[in-house]
Amino acid sequence: MSIRKPYVIFLGDAAEPVLAKTAFGVRDWAPEDCLAQWRLPECKVDLGLPDKTPAEAAAAGARSLLIGIAPGGGRIPAAWVPGLKSAIEAGLDIVSGLHTRLEDVEGLAELAAKHKVQLINVRTPPTNLPVGNGLKRTGKRLLTVGTDCALGKKYTALTITKALKARGVAADFRATGQTGILIAGSGVPLDSVVADFVAGAIEQITPAAAADHWDVIEGQGSLFHPGYAGVTLGLVHGSQADALILCHDPSRKHIAYHPHQAMPSLKLAATRYLEAAQLTNPNVKLVGVSLNTSSLSQAERERALSDAENELGVPSFDPLKTSSDAVLDRLLKA
Amino acid sequence: MSIRKPYVIFLGDAAEPVLAKTAFGVRDWAPEDCLAQWRLPECKVDLGLPDKTPAEAAAAGARSLLIGIAPGGGRIPAAWVPGLKSAIEAGLDIVSGLHTRLEDVEGLAELAAKHKVQLINVRTPPTNLPVGNGLKRTGKRLLTVGTDCALGKKYTALTITKALKARGVAADFRATGQTGILIAGSGVPLDSVVADFVAGAIEQITPAAAADHWDVIEGQGSLFHPGYAGVTLGLVHGSQADALILCHDPSRKHIAYHPHQAMPSLKLAATRYLEAAQLTNPNVKLVGVSLNTSSLSQAERERALSDAENELGVPSFDPLKTSSDAVLDRLLKA
Repeated sequence: MSIRKPYVIFLGDAAEPVLAKTAFGVRDWAPEDCLAQWRLPECKVDLGLPDKTPAEAAAAGARSLLIGIAPGGGRIPAAWVPGLKSAIEAGLDIVSGLHTRLEDVEGLAELAAKHKVQLINVRTPPTNLPVGNGLKRTGKRLLTVGTDCALGKKYTALTITKALKARGVAADFRATGQTGILIAGSGVPLDSVVADFVAGAIEQITPAAAADHWDVIEGQGSLFHPGYAGVTLGLVHGSQADALILCHDPSRKHIAYHPHQAMPSLKLAATRYLEAAQLTNPNVKLVGVSLNTSSLSQAERERALSDAENELGVPSFDPLKTSSDAVLDRLLKA
Repeated sequence: MSIRKPYVIFLGDAAEPVLAKTAFGVRDWAPEDCLAQWRLPECKVDLGLPDKTPAEAAAAGARSLLIGIAPGGGRIPAAWVPGLKSAIEAGLDIVSGLHTRLEDVEGLAELAAKHKVQLINVRTPPTNLPVGNGLKRTGKRLLTVGTDCALGKKYTALTITKALKARGVAADFRATGQTGILIAGSGVPLDSVVADFVAGAIEQITPAAAADHWDVIEGQGSLFHPGYAGVTLGLVHGSQADALILCHDPSRKHIAYHPHQAMPSLKLAATRYLEAAQLTNPNVKLVGVSLNTSSLSQAERERALSDAENELGVPSFDPLKTSSDAVLDRLLKA
């Protein structure tokens, strides 16, 4: 899955920013790929990008219309269809992370074929994914892992990628979820992959590379989640990680939505992730802890960061609040 | 997925028994469900069942025609189609574990609708599988796990199920692969399930049950396989196992087809499986070791069984060669 850039981001009639989380994520993390926004008259959200119609955006060099909002239910409303058609007629690919497949919207497939543009459904994994084989690949890989779901693995990976590039290190963010794929322009939607092919999919999106190149891989799920741990283990094995960053939210009292499922200690989590990762890379190291401290006071944050460092013996940071420098130093030294 | 029995087993024009492994498995493990075999004139394989045409089998009480052979490539040859249609016209469901979906064979779907029979593709998982939640369920569960793929997990689970029933214990074999599903008449084809739903699928096929009832669950893959470990972990978590039996082949020098991937020691394998299983059942116990000693001499077999017992402190057996009594005793005492 490879998406043509730059984007014009479609915001539809979005009434509030929370509906446009995808759009804000792409704008924040791939600003160079965001050429314009396209808003219907009722739209109340503003990304701060130039407003352009699909035709104007195409004339200015845009290659894809990216659907940047998620309507209730994840379906494509009928009211959008004329707009999507006008984008196709302007020569733009359409890129969607919604549940409705673009081909299933009346008339889009024919029009896309006529105008030789692509309809890209970010939720649909490629066919013919391989089974993972564990064969050693050149290049270096970092994977973000977590005590639970939804506590900063994507944000941490994006932060580390940016910081590596700022130091002049060759690095690529490797996306495993929909928003990540829209940011990176490629990746695999792991939540739609048949279980037999999870590790193989990750091997495919993190191929052999130059010896000093880093793939920074977006983690998913958690080894401690009763429903998703298998996905996480496939991701750990397929990534053949040289380095792990453990992500955690100190305010979380149990696995999200699972009050009967205890959170692991940082020590236990680090131990289990290293054990798992050693299957395909015996030299894997934990290089840092990433804490989501958004719900803590300044004093509590400092305490939590310091406690985590003491518990695991590696540097800690909060990608939204503190510097990643110490973790980067550790990573590049390892 | 629930299959109507008894079966008439279709052997087509199979030239040698190896092509009919599924048929032999069903005959050996579910003899009470096998009413007849149906062979084309060229067929060289004999299950020892009465020969009946679909119409004769239906008249004798058969409910499904089970395709018991795997042609090269796993596709349904055109030459079979008239026979399958005659089975539908006789009122039989058609049950297939092949790659070709029965609905994709010209004319079958319409005919099945007309005769109100089912076309069951054992490789196609049910839709709307849940995500696993790890909530405690009543009843007891045993899972067979392995140091690698394809070394006796299904055979071990079937043997234990049979032995439990022989002792008067309520037990059900729970199938997670195609042959297992045909034997059990239900189950989930785990190799086709989207990764997010593996644990949930297992929770669904091993539901809450009477306190003294045992589900004996067919294991898949291995935590030590670089491609399939994620599937195995979802299976371990979803099964919420009270008891594990570790399956191993002492003659295997590395993970099959992966010479770069070492086999774990029995001790390491037992440790990792127990750690993993504790997430959803802190009281899980290893109750036995099942060895596939088919390639060993009698003296080597005895030595291997004794070594395994000493290494793990639980009874060992080879389901094809020795008694499961000691493992059963341990299981029922635990």
